[in-house]
Amino acid sequence: MTIDDQWQPIKNSALPLYQQIYEFIREQIISGNWPVGYKLPSQRELAAAYQVNRSTIVYALEELKADGWIESQVGRGTVVCQNTWSPLTANPRADWKTYIQSGTHLPNIQMIQEINKAEFSSHIIRLGTGELSPSLLPTAMIQDAFAETAALSLSYPEGKGSFLLRQAVSGYLQKKGIFVSPNSIMIVSGAIQALQLISIGLLDQDSAILTESPSYLNSIMVFQSAGIRMVPLNNGEHSFSAVSRAKRQHNTALLYTTPTFHNPTGYCMPETKRIELLEACAKERLPILEDDVYGDLWLDTPPPAPLKALDKHGNVLYVGSMSKVLGPGLRIGFITAPEPVIERLADIKMQTDYGSSTLSQFAVAKLMTNGNYEVHIERIRNELRERRDFVLSLLSKYFADIAVWEKPAGGFYIWLSLKKDIPLLLLFRRALQHGILINPGSLYGNYHSHIRLSYSYASKEELEQGLIALAALIKEF
Amino acid sequence: MTIDDQWQPIKNSALPLYQQIYEFIREQIISGNWPVGYKLPSQRELAAAYQVNRSTIVYALEELKADGWIESQVGRGTVVCQNTWSPLTANPRADWKTYIQSGTHLPNIQMIQEINKAEFSSHIIRLGTGELSPSLLPTAMIQDAFAETAALSLSYPEGKGSFLLRQAVSGYLQKKGIFVSPNSIMIVSGAIQALQLISIGLLDQDSAILTESPSYLNSIMVFQSAGIRMVPLNNGEHSFSAVSRAKRQHNTALLYTTPTFHNPTGYCMPETKRIELLEACAKERLPILEDDVYGDLWLDTPPPAPLKALDKHGNVLYVGSMSKVLGPGLRIGFITAPEPVIERLADIKMQTDYGSSTLSQFAVAKLMTNGNYEVHIERIRNELRERRDFVLSLLSKYFADIAVWEKPAGGFYIWLSLKKDIPLLLLFRRALQHGILINPGSLYGNYHSHIRLSYSYASKEELEQGLIALAALIKEF
Repeated sequence: MTIDDQWQPIKNSALPLYQQIYEFIREQIISGNWPVGYKLPSQRELAAAYQVNRSTIVYALEELKADGWIESQVGRGTVVCQNTWSPLTANPRADWKTYIQSGTHLPNIQMIQEINKAEFSSHIIRLGTGELSPSLLPTAMIQDAFAETAALSLSYPEGKGSFLLRQAVSGYLQKKGIFVSPNSIMIVSGAIQALQLISIGLLDQDSAILTESPSYLNSIMVFQSAGIRMVPLNNGEHSFSAVSRAKRQHNTALLYTTPTFHNPTGYCMPETKRIELLEACAKERLPILEDDVYGDLWLDTPPPAPLKALDKHGNVLYVGSMSKVLGPGLRIGFITAPEPVIERLADIKMQTDYGSSTLSQFAVAKLMTNGNYEVHIERIRNELRERRDFVLSLLSKYFADIAVWEKPAGGFYIWLSLKKDIPLLLLFRRALQHGILINPGSLYGNYHSHIRLSYSYASKEELEQGLIALAALIKEF
Repeated sequence: MTIDDQWQPIKNSALPLYQQIYEFIREQIISGNWPVGYKLPSQRELAAAYQVNRSTIVYALEELKADGWIESQVGRGTVVCQNTWSPLTANPRADWKTYIQSGTHLPNIQMIQEINKAEFSSHIIRLGTGELSPSLLPTAMIQDAFAETAALSLSYPEGKGSFLLRQAVSGYLQKKGIFVSPNSIMIVSGAIQALQLISIGLLDQDSAILTESPSYLNSIMVFQSAGIRMVPLNNGEHSFSAVSRAKRQHNTALLYTTPTFHNPTGYCMPETKRIELLEACAKERLPILEDDVYGDLWLDTPPPAPLKALDKHGNVLYVGSMSKVLGPGLRIGFITAPEPVIERLADIKMQTDYGSSTLSQFAVAKLMTNGNYEVHIERIRNELRERRDFVLSLLSKYFADIAVWEKPAGGFYIWLSLKKDIPLLLLFRRALQHGILINPGSLYGNYHSHIRLSYSYASKEELEQGLIALAALIKEF
């Protein structure tokens, strides 16, 4: 249960504080906002939230208990009672608990839920967050985009996305050697929606996806929720000799790969491997889902061309995103695929959210066509390069005896491999207690001595302070 | 197949036009954009798209046929050939056709697909479109909102939505008699996403939803795609005596209703009926899904309070939207529900699209707190009232002998009931040939002599011209 962030008792009211709190909680229960069986926050948490003494909370809760609204349950704490609203009649309340446990979509992985929550608390040093620091995001450029809104529509967006933006993406992809018309491009609300649409639009239940191991896909439940299995292809290696066998052993529908600045390893696949992979998949007529959300973030030299640029058979579904470069708040990504595939996916997108925000589409199209995208990316490349080198120097200083790692040539991540197996969940919890948020390797597969570090989010001061503390915590084991 | 909107042959090139078109189409086929079996547009369409004589197209197609890229198939037209790319080796192309027919999500209803397409062609008079005319949308107010972007974040949105916007919605709902804290509110990308999240997050496969008949729900496939059945409750009537029986007969999970300015009928449920419905559902512990996207659009007097305001048991899931008032392009709506339900839905939203655009959330929060929302709604109420009365006068003049209707007290729609059964699909097609787009009643249930008219979108000139032509077409039957 979260505590209401808005409501506060009034300090100088004629009504005593405990009475105000009593009334507020009773109202939450009557209205059904706090349903039967729901666990109240602890007395300590309530006192902090309402900025009152703990004794005031104790008074209020005692009154609520006396009046039959709440009860203490051994091992559960204080919960809302059964039949509180109308104890003499039959229970007229919907059984929400059952509803919450229904539905085909799986809940997020527990640790991801905890990470999502911790990310929104202040004073946390986020060592694993895969996004640019807010200070690196182009807010002023976005504001500029709205200085002239003649081309801005507030009507229903087109299912495939605004033509202006698709045209801009088509031009942007040409520079990567990908020649697709705006009709083969579809705008989505971030790369994750691309995966979601593919999972419910193109794949059968009980089919399988081949993934690299480790893989970002293991940290999300998108495909599993659609009844699709994940088959790890190559354990930490980068060979594709196993594609044919894996394809035959499983009812394989797709191969998912992030060849450029892989999440979580930072690995960049060399061109020979790319060609090997394309050929192995063409031989099996196995489509490839290429996730290229980090491709623009090269730090030393441009990476090899995307698989899609080398694809001669229309076998690659290519997913890109503005989240890693312009900011995830825009919720703009794209898919390119053969036209009939795009038509199918756009039809489903229309049915599930009626298209992406026209404000976001408008702003991104502007930045991609007025030169600001290039200006911005040049700036963040310099910033990221500095941050990467800074983190590498910190690692050499504090982690040399406890871990190994590779220098990434782009993207956000360093894949730290600990020399000793330690209980990662315990490390995660202890670090959180010290105000440090890490992404344990176990989120990405069977990697229990790895940590995904990111140099993109935390400030340099935070990175230094956080990494020193993390090294100390690891050494405690 | 759509024709590429962007590419055009160069008129003064040294390369003949037909050769340029040959090269372009060949490139589409090689790249896989136009896959094997794909039907090319007609010669007439190609000639129009590329602004050349039909004979130029004939030349280009003949060359492509001669070179084995395309072939004519009896009854199908011209299609891309099997194995064109590499006729001597095994086919390395993915079998996209099978993929497109896979996936759990159902395709949109054929007629809705046609409507969606026709809506984006110009010179069409849209007599059924459920959205404000672009001229009535507050583009300047949105632009103003970006004049000061201090509170704008481009980082990952919170799963439930930005706190500022949830706070604004909480205040907005208070004026409707709905008292919910920001924690019981979740921002979604339009009301349709609310339905989508509920379908995959709260309901079991093979459960059923009770709906009014006719109902907007029949025009979308959101629930059906999640394996949920639709049970029409009351055939064109507004009685709820059948709730208990229907609930027992089916594995009923929810009752869906639009009590205020119903889509498609425009009906506004009186308060006594609202109380009757709430009691019937409370008796059965059946949650209600209240769709209130039209509530602010009253034209004569404010409507009765929403069901959610009368709900004493937390049994109502309440869905609202900014689409009908501020513009669907924003893709901002909201759900209020008991907190644990909101937590479940927000978790799924995070997994499927990572939250709604922060640009849209920011802009809507601004308009809802700086007074512009009220200014705007006052303006469009006046406009809509005038349009409604204008359409009612046109109907009296041209439809009195062929149809009956009620005067709606708000919303966008007039539910035209034809006095004679006529083949609606044929009328739909004929009207489209005359440049008039209508929404036949059959989209909303078993209503084969009804048409949903909207006075919100087309201009007054278009409404007059379109309705006169529509009356004439109906009289032809």
